[in-house]
Amino acid sequence: MKLLKVDTIQQVLDKMEYHFADIKLSTEKINVLDAVGRTAAEDVHSQYDIPDFNRSTVDGYAIVASDTFGVTESIPVFLDVIGQVDMGKATEIIISKGKAAYVPTGGMVPSGADAMIMIEHIEEMDSKTIAAYSSTAPGENVIKVGDDVAAGETLIQIGKLIRPQDIGALTAAGMRQINVFEKPKVAVISTGDEIADPFGEVQFGEIRDINTYTLSAMLEEMGAEATIKKVIKDEYELLKENVEAALKDNHIIIISGGSSVGTKDVTAKVIDSLGEPGVFVHGMAIKPGKPTILGKAKGKALVGLPGHPVSAIMVFRVLIGQFIAKLMHRDQFNLQIPAVCDTNVHSSPGKETFQMVELQRIDNGYIAIPLYGKSGAISLVSKAHGFVRIPHNKEGIGKGETVMVELI
Amino acid sequence: MKLLKVDTIQQVLDKMEYHFADIKLSTEKINVLDAVGRTAAEDVHSQYDIPDFNRSTVDGYAIVASDTFGVTESIPVFLDVIGQVDMGKATEIIISKGKAAYVPTGGMVPSGADAMIMIEHIEEMDSKTIAAYSSTAPGENVIKVGDDVAAGETLIQIGKLIRPQDIGALTAAGMRQINVFEKPKVAVISTGDEIADPFGEVQFGEIRDINTYTLSAMLEEMGAEATIKKVIKDEYELLKENVEAALKDNHIIIISGGSSVGTKDVTAKVIDSLGEPGVFVHGMAIKPGKPTILGKAKGKALVGLPGHPVSAIMVFRVLIGQFIAKLMHRDQFNLQIPAVCDTNVHSSPGKETFQMVELQRIDNGYIAIPLYGKSGAISLVSKAHGFVRIPHNKEGIGKGETVMVELI
Repeated sequence: MKLLKVDTIQQVLDKMEYHFADIKLSTEKINVLDAVGRTAAEDVHSQYDIPDFNRSTVDGYAIVASDTFGVTESIPVFLDVIGQVDMGKATEIIISKGKAAYVPTGGMVPSGADAMIMIEHIEEMDSKTIAAYSSTAPGENVIKVGDDVAAGETLIQIGKLIRPQDIGALTAAGMRQINVFEKPKVAVISTGDEIADPFGEVQFGEIRDINTYTLSAMLEEMGAEATIKKVIKDEYELLKENVEAALKDNHIIIISGGSSVGTKDVTAKVIDSLGEPGVFVHGMAIKPGKPTILGKAKGKALVGLPGHPVSAIMVFRVLIGQFIAKLMHRDQFNLQIPAVCDTNVHSSPGKETFQMVELQRIDNGYIAIPLYGKSGAISLVSKAHGFVRIPHNKEGIGKGETVMVELI
Repeated sequence: MKLLKVDTIQQVLDKMEYHFADIKLSTEKINVLDAVGRTAAEDVHSQYDIPDFNRSTVDGYAIVASDTFGVTESIPVFLDVIGQVDMGKATEIIISKGKAAYVPTGGMVPSGADAMIMIEHIEEMDSKTIAAYSSTAPGENVIKVGDDVAAGETLIQIGKLIRPQDIGALTAAGMRQINVFEKPKVAVISTGDEIADPFGEVQFGEIRDINTYTLSAMLEEMGAEATIKKVIKDEYELLKENVEAALKDNHIIIISGGSSVGTKDVTAKVIDSLGEPGVFVHGMAIKPGKPTILGKAKGKALVGLPGHPVSAIMVFRVLIGQFIAKLMHRDQFNLQIPAVCDTNVHSSPGKETFQMVELQRIDNGYIAIPLYGKSGAISLVSKAHGFVRIPHNKEGIGKGETVMVELI
């Protein structure tokens, strides 16, 4: 009997850590407005105090807070209005006890004032006098210089995925450019004599190409670049030629299909032919995804993914995407959500199993409902919201157990 | 005292439901390969059975399962090898009892065979004979015609956000095009005399424009189109002119800034000048985000967002984004994750409060750690992973309570 020597997922991760340690991304400076979805390549410190003047958070009057201490709706204090501050303008007004000046939301609080009383809590007696009906604490309704961000403070940390609000923080701090990691460059080559162009004519016995598109889309969704998207026949010379060409300008070459032990499998041979160390993982104890190959040559990562679309997607989800996220210094790839499993789930002994689930919202949480179907069913992965990992040393999941669902 | 008549968030949602009921998106047919991130505008049914032939999920031999019943590692059964199936090719082989044929992973299982025995469980005695060492059940390692998806079955439901694996399911089913909702078209107009170009020179007292960029980025991230991104002075005629121009080609016009009760606030006046019904919400009982305006004119949604970046982001997160998601028939806008609150959190009585939190991973879940800072601190929103809603009739959150964190 032929038996593949397979690794556990932890052994594979350890080997990747060791062999791929010298694969690094370069960085590039880009305009902050183009940075959503990119990953910060350095800690970013604010050049300015935010705000750079004491700013009112309300429409109201700048006052000395102690003037209002003890004031109530029935016992107001009367203050002299000595001016008003215009939006977007510096002001020369100085507030002292017994005085007040109108400041709109976002306007500059004049010096001397230590609080803003909201317009809802005053009454305009005449153009020179207000009655204040509410006790106001020092600092109330004022953002002081540097309260939001002090000059020099860390705004963004290395490895942070930039979101819209981060662009907000960066522009507020006057940053025009940000150093981000280059997009990891990945070639996606699908092999197999049975693979047909999904938009062309498909012969009986052929299978429509799925992996090229799903892998490329997953890469692009996570902020990597699919530089090559290609389907070729499962022939040694042809594959070698294509992989060699792809090695030049990519960090990773993903070859999908051809990684099973069938007679026409050539991926491992091609990887081994390209230089040291060649193939260092041939088969993994996971389900689905067993026939996965990992290798290295000319300083680049080489990945042989199973031809089954579902297996290819899952190995990408648990291994390759995680590695690419790590290249970008990100913590995790799949977003994880705790959920309560609604039935018992059995797993394949000795293999790490990935169980597809649907999530159903309940009060303050989710229920995970296992989805069943034949291995390799793309409809399952399309229906699923995510999957649950069942480690190789665990028999399954019990009904009512809380599990982490990794979103896909 | 001036008091705004403010609505609870539920009152606002009810009014939006009523007034915006006739705002609809048209649909467009696009190539399925361009559909990631778009939203399905109809139920999609498979044109084909997937697979359309009985497909092997392993490298091995097609057999009649009953030939192996009772077989063990010490008592094998011997089968005649009558041929092999090539990848991607139809086969004429017919398997009957006592016969076997080699089939690679993904290959067609010949008629007559009802199972595949894995190559790991056989031994090749000679070119014409194998010994099978494992009892194999009918159907084992075979995906039957239509097992994955039956012709006519629903692959994708209306309102589904298309992910990479959905492209996989669609291409597997031979779909070339898919009907998706047009991208909601939104004009983003920021007003305010104090608003400065963040990349230009900023005068003392001015504030760098943040809202235009963060709102546009949030729109684009959710699959909408920010058709106009503009900063203008807070003047009635200028704003009216810009909003009128934007009404033509957009579903929604967002005006940020100018929605407080300050002397220069003109947003509500402009909205009321454009036609019936005009402004129908002026102020909301939420914190932050109180001075929000909603209106309708010429069949389009008009939104006045607070000028504070954090308030603008939050009102987008809880109201506008949710409305846009609903336009696309999506269930929810913010992804929600249950977490255990690690301290007591107090809220503003009478207002729905949004508390920013950081998430920290623990075994099988997350802890939510409240982040504190001045209202309007963009650094808070940039540090936060999400926020927790505290309803207006609740005093706060207790330590140890499970809450739903809405990711931002």
